[in-house]
Amino acid sequence: MLSLNLEILMEFIVYFQNLTIMNVDLTYYKEGLIRSDRIILGQAITLIESDLVEDRRLADELIENILPKTGSSIRVGVTGAPGAGKSTFIEVFGKYITSLGKKVAVLTIDPSSQKTRGSILGDKTRMEELSRDSLAFIRPTAAGSAAGGVSGSTREAILLCEVAGYEVIIVETVGVGQSQVGVRGMVDFFLLLMLAGAGDELQGIKKGIMEMVDGMAITKADGDNVAKANHARADYQNALHLFQTSESGWVPRVITTSAVAKTGIKETWDMIESFLRHSANNGFFERQRNQQQLSWFYSALDSTIRDKIIRQSKDALASIEKRILSHQISPARAAQHILENLTF
Amino acid sequence: MLSLNLEILMEFIVYFQNLTIMNVDLTYYKEGLIRSDRIILGQAITLIESDLVEDRRLADELIENILPKTGSSIRVGVTGAPGAGKSTFIEVFGKYITSLGKKVAVLTIDPSSQKTRGSILGDKTRMEELSRDSLAFIRPTAAGSAAGGVSGSTREAILLCEVAGYEVIIVETVGVGQSQVGVRGMVDFFLLLMLAGAGDELQGIKKGIMEMVDGMAITKADGDNVAKANHARADYQNALHLFQTSESGWVPRVITTSAVAKTGIKETWDMIESFLRHSANNGFFERQRNQQQLSWFYSALDSTIRDKIIRQSKDALASIEKRILSHQISPARAAQHILENLTF
Repeated sequence: MLSLNLEILMEFIVYFQNLTIMNVDLTYYKEGLIRSDRIILGQAITLIESDLVEDRRLADELIENILPKTGSSIRVGVTGAPGAGKSTFIEVFGKYITSLGKKVAVLTIDPSSQKTRGSILGDKTRMEELSRDSLAFIRPTAAGSAAGGVSGSTREAILLCEVAGYEVIIVETVGVGQSQVGVRGMVDFFLLLMLAGAGDELQGIKKGIMEMVDGMAITKADGDNVAKANHARADYQNALHLFQTSESGWVPRVITTSAVAKTGIKETWDMIESFLRHSANNGFFERQRNQQQLSWFYSALDSTIRDKIIRQSKDALASIEKRILSHQISPARAAQHILENLTF
Repeated sequence: MLSLNLEILMEFIVYFQNLTIMNVDLTYYKEGLIRSDRIILGQAITLIESDLVEDRRLADELIENILPKTGSSIRVGVTGAPGAGKSTFIEVFGKYITSLGKKVAVLTIDPSSQKTRGSILGDKTRMEELSRDSLAFIRPTAAGSAAGGVSGSTREAILLCEVAGYEVIIVETVGVGQSQVGVRGMVDFFLLLMLAGAGDELQGIKKGIMEMVDGMAITKADGDNVAKANHARADYQNALHLFQTSESGWVPRVITTSAVAKTGIKETWDMIESFLRHSANNGFFERQRNQQQLSWFYSALDSTIRDKIIRQSKDALASIEKRILSHQISPARAAQHILENLTF
């Protein structure tokens, strides 16, 4: 009897310990975010990127807890091919935003590495001046994670930055298919950077990306490049007219910019602001935000299921693939078979 | 006691009745297919397109039963914008194939209607001459079905035609995104039809489709159109060179054709045959077939899960969407919640 009681007592102690740790942690993160503590913001992003089950549980708790305080920032996606001058542009553009007294966060997605924690320093040196700005926060985020599909953790990082008071959040991604689509689905305004004079202007741009952008900035439009940049600007503006008007009713604009001469930077910001006015007026802003929340949900559904199947049925999958290829079982039946043995 | 025994007896009778019907039906379909009975082939396609649970069960049984006898045909996908002359081309092309003594089946996919049974007559009149050919079989199939994802039923219809002895199977689809991708995933050779002189040649072609094709046929290359068609041929051949060599190592060819002058028809068939030799030699043919079987399986997994979720959690989905939009639950958590309540 005594030993049983002791066991029960021990269980209670562990239970309350866990409860306490959880609450301390949740409070730690939540209060840190609310008082805009940059170190805790960084730690919170590390937490949501973690694959550990306990971390994930706490991360879910945290996100759910802060949800009512999110959504107030302007979310801007910036994409472009490697060499288009994304870092240089974002540094100058970010400095312009902080010069307006606004807090800016830059989240960079590196689709080539699933975990990018190691490259934080690398990124800080890329945007040296901006990273020293007390109104700015720069952080690479992992491309894939447990937080719901491709770029789930970036979506959550946006929310964390919002609670920490960042008013403009720039999500940067390189010009590679999947991550661009992901970023397009989490920002209000999607900006494409193009380097003028890099060979045939329209060569190499994926039409699919042109259809997703709200604006374009031609970079390095200075010195000998000015004429080329203006030419490119006209070309792209024409190309953009070929696409049907988007659901937003907004016609994408093309701007020439120079990080060196600091031209086109204010204009880019003005373009974003007029897009926001336009889309707030016709209701598109809210509609897009709602749509993005729901597609996050559905992509989280997909990726959770995929994870479960791969984890629970790895061996079964391998053997059923063999049976499919040797015509022993039909693909449709094989699918039913795998699902019958799945538990959530 | 008596009443209970009667009930048990009744259950047994129903059970054996079902068993008998099932076996008779399976044999009926299977033997009908093997002796190449066109009426039974048509009935079998109707069966695999059915949404009824019992039909689906029998369809699965049938497919599994015939699997070892499938795979021996040449599967050709034909796509093109509305007005490119697909029916006219397929009729002449199909007649050429039957003139070689080969049996040809034409499966047309109408992505605009999920169920197309009603339009069988419409399709027969479109290819009047071919439909009277005893070596030809023409049939529209439904775009989506229970048989595993988009175009699952077309995949199964191909198998049924193969068991019925059809040596060439043409799958026709209009030039609309999703169904083209679907067809590309179920055929050995993918042919794009283009009408010459319909405005700017390269205007309006989706680059993504150019990347998928193994060959192109410029249609209506007769009379005044010949010069335009030759010009278009050169343009497209150049455009195709822009894309990287496909995994097959095959360089897509462009041929000018005329259904009226009967030109380019033999050449199209010769092109397909040399593709087949090429891809058999380097192992691509088998690799692609295997890959297609596996992606059918994975898309069946996806669609089965989607069906389950929508059926079992329709109300839960609606209410959880509301909670997501009002920031009461995070999308990632919402996904977990839905899955916890799912059974397979």
